[in-house]
Amino acid sequence: VRVTDHRQVVAAKRDGRTLTAAEVEGFMEGYTGGDVSDALAASFLMACVLNGMDAGETLAMTRAMIASGETVSFSGLERPTVDKHSTGGVSDGVTLVFAPLAASLGLAVAKLSGRGLGHTGGTLDKLESIPGLRTDLTPDELRAQVAEVGCAVGAPSANLVPADGALYALRDATATVPSIPLIAASVMSKKLAVGTDLILLDVKAGSGAFMKTPEEAERLAVACLDLATGWGRAARVAVTDMSQPLGDAVGNALDVAEAVEVLQGGFRGRMRDLAVAFAAAALEHAGSVGRDEATARAEVALDDGSALERFRAMVEAQGGDPRVAEDPWAVLPKAPVVRPLTAAASGVVQAIDAEAIGLASGALGAGRLHKGDPIDPAVGIVVRVKVGDRVEAGEPIGALHARDGGSAADAAARVNAALTLGEGEAAPAPLVYGWFG
Amino acid sequence: VRVTDHRQVVAAKRDGRTLTAAEVEGFMEGYTGGDVSDALAASFLMACVLNGMDAGETLAMTRAMIASGETVSFSGLERPTVDKHSTGGVSDGVTLVFAPLAASLGLAVAKLSGRGLGHTGGTLDKLESIPGLRTDLTPDELRAQVAEVGCAVGAPSANLVPADGALYALRDATATVPSIPLIAASVMSKKLAVGTDLILLDVKAGSGAFMKTPEEAERLAVACLDLATGWGRAARVAVTDMSQPLGDAVGNALDVAEAVEVLQGGFRGRMRDLAVAFAAAALEHAGSVGRDEATARAEVALDDGSALERFRAMVEAQGGDPRVAEDPWAVLPKAPVVRPLTAAASGVVQAIDAEAIGLASGALGAGRLHKGDPIDPAVGIVVRVKVGDRVEAGEPIGALHARDGGSAADAAARVNAALTLGEGEAAPAPLVYGWFG
Repeated sequence: VRVTDHRQVVAAKRDGRTLTAAEVEGFMEGYTGGDVSDALAASFLMACVLNGMDAGETLAMTRAMIASGETVSFSGLERPTVDKHSTGGVSDGVTLVFAPLAASLGLAVAKLSGRGLGHTGGTLDKLESIPGLRTDLTPDELRAQVAEVGCAVGAPSANLVPADGALYALRDATATVPSIPLIAASVMSKKLAVGTDLILLDVKAGSGAFMKTPEEAERLAVACLDLATGWGRAARVAVTDMSQPLGDAVGNALDVAEAVEVLQGGFRGRMRDLAVAFAAAALEHAGSVGRDEATARAEVALDDGSALERFRAMVEAQGGDPRVAEDPWAVLPKAPVVRPLTAAASGVVQAIDAEAIGLASGALGAGRLHKGDPIDPAVGIVVRVKVGDRVEAGEPIGALHARDGGSAADAAARVNAALTLGEGEAAPAPLVYGWFG
Repeated sequence: VRVTDHRQVVAAKRDGRTLTAAEVEGFMEGYTGGDVSDALAASFLMACVLNGMDAGETLAMTRAMIASGETVSFSGLERPTVDKHSTGGVSDGVTLVFAPLAASLGLAVAKLSGRGLGHTGGTLDKLESIPGLRTDLTPDELRAQVAEVGCAVGAPSANLVPADGALYALRDATATVPSIPLIAASVMSKKLAVGTDLILLDVKAGSGAFMKTPEEAERLAVACLDLATGWGRAARVAVTDMSQPLGDAVGNALDVAEAVEVLQGGFRGRMRDLAVAFAAAALEHAGSVGRDEATARAEVALDDGSALERFRAMVEAQGGDPRVAEDPWAVLPKAPVVRPLTAAASGVVQAIDAEAIGLASGALGAGRLHKGDPIDPAVGIVVRVKVGDRVEAGEPIGALHARDGGSAADAAARVNAALTLGEGEAAPAPLVYGWFG
């Protein structure tokens, strides 16, 4: 393919023409093969951001991204396989609960997870706070563990959709991130490259998500669903609320401890409800059971300890200390400074800036601003108030787990600044805006 | 300036916000200084192509481009100084006539000219076909010659608006060329960097121009005029016809010979008319003389040999063989093969694809597809028919000056294919669509 052909593809997208699948795939092959410069790719990406991409163009781009690396197959497993992915939020430990919960219900969860970036946390980072736990599972190890335990959460190999990493780095460097089709291609290429029977997708909407409104999140949900359909894969996509942190814990070891609390049946709230909703959706999809029955079975699996037992088995299989399932803080790393978080003023919580709280936790050391930065598994924030709750000035509303008193005080100020207090009653957004697929 | 700030500028342009002058200039400084990557610059350029740039943004970009290098001053000259620039066409030798013509009328023409690219010719390439002629004048040589002879045509130094060369190469490589504001900034940065009393701009419209319609050309004319006004410089801009070659000669030595014919007073036609129109506009601007009187004086200067005399002096001052002014073919390089061009069919010329004829001449060796490629000064095409003329099959309608018979035959076929013949009468487009400023 000559260089001028690649420019013609960019010119066509610039001029508003819909590209053929061959044009998109040829351009992407040129990019991954080095024939298309970063500069030409960047002008292409900006043209895609501004002129949009239709379902066919997005599917072609996704196909080219998947073709850039290897794929993972789970065919031959006896149990129905499920993948579950969240587009990223604050205090979103649902995967930690969902994977063993679904396994306890007879499903097989094969999950290649990601790391936190910016204000969002990542499942791998959370899991790795458990001493000894490995996430660098080979494809064979992953498959064997899924067959034996029913669930495994590992890191994707560098050769799983390598074009996505390169393209995302370029988008990040060239202000071409915000595009529904490009985001959908990035998310779904990594899901479609892993051959499970069902893809569950949690598209977050709100102040702690990349999609700030439910409408935007719905557009992303539909784009992702279109890609799964175009690829011939079953998917169910939920748009869920991220206008406040989902759980109370915003960190890594803190999130594991909270997930264990949910798995022990002792925690009631949105984190449990969402894990149950996803497990029920997977169970309903896999067999003859209806949604209500599936939901009831998931609730029981949390209350009778069978989900917790699968969690313990998963941790143990991955080399982690299984005592985390009984007494998390007996094994999890603890921050040197733990201070109560007290409300700076009185009123009813009208809104919580979840992104600000995610960034405050990141500033303590729990997150990273740049890919590859180290994180501190022990630090983070616990905020025990939600929209609609009344707080009184000086009342303890959570805790700060920090390396020192100064950073704890900074985080306390940031959390209080992220709370909007008022006098009127306030109702939280619905947990689930809707299901697609 | 931090990298993230540069990305924020691109994000703002992407999101449709009008940039401040400081933002545009900071970004451009980042680009020329190496802080902004080619990829980020490319995404910025595509955002500018698709979301547009207003007059303030375009002026700020132009200012930053000019600030990237040195400027040339002609202050202190006794005569009013004029620069004249064409956006590029086919058989556009007007500058070769205009410069000595305006000099003969008492003006001083200081012209830093360009080279041909693609289907368009360049004044420097044409002039350099005169044996011995130098265009690499230093600023001091240029100024001394303008003071003494009244006109000089030189090559810009590499340090005159260096950002334009870099930016144009990037635009060419990233499909971000077609943008009125970016083209205006490119054209005018090089004019505004040279301090003359008047800028004359010839914006070409039609099949042989970059702007294919008069409407598009008018938008570019207005954008260029806005830049001159914003910079505090006098400018007059004409939108003129390039829907067919302006003169008959399409080459380099061939164009010089044709220009000499005009300067000798023997040639009537659009090339002479346009040179007269620009000289009259300059003379009118410089003094108390009206347009009709200015036009009459320019006509006289062509007919009485005074313009030719300035041409001879200019050629001599730049080291060229002055006999070119009396007998061009006594000194100009000749092609080894000269063949008559005959009409392949009969009919009235309805249209001439000037770009195709420019490319046919380029294929003979008279032009270049890539910056820096060598050209052959001797070869080219002469086409002596215009829109509205009747031709008969087999009738000689011009000549092919080639290196060999094969390329001459190819060129003949290409020229005939570029002619649209029909039975009805056909009227040419007006020579001048309008003046601005």
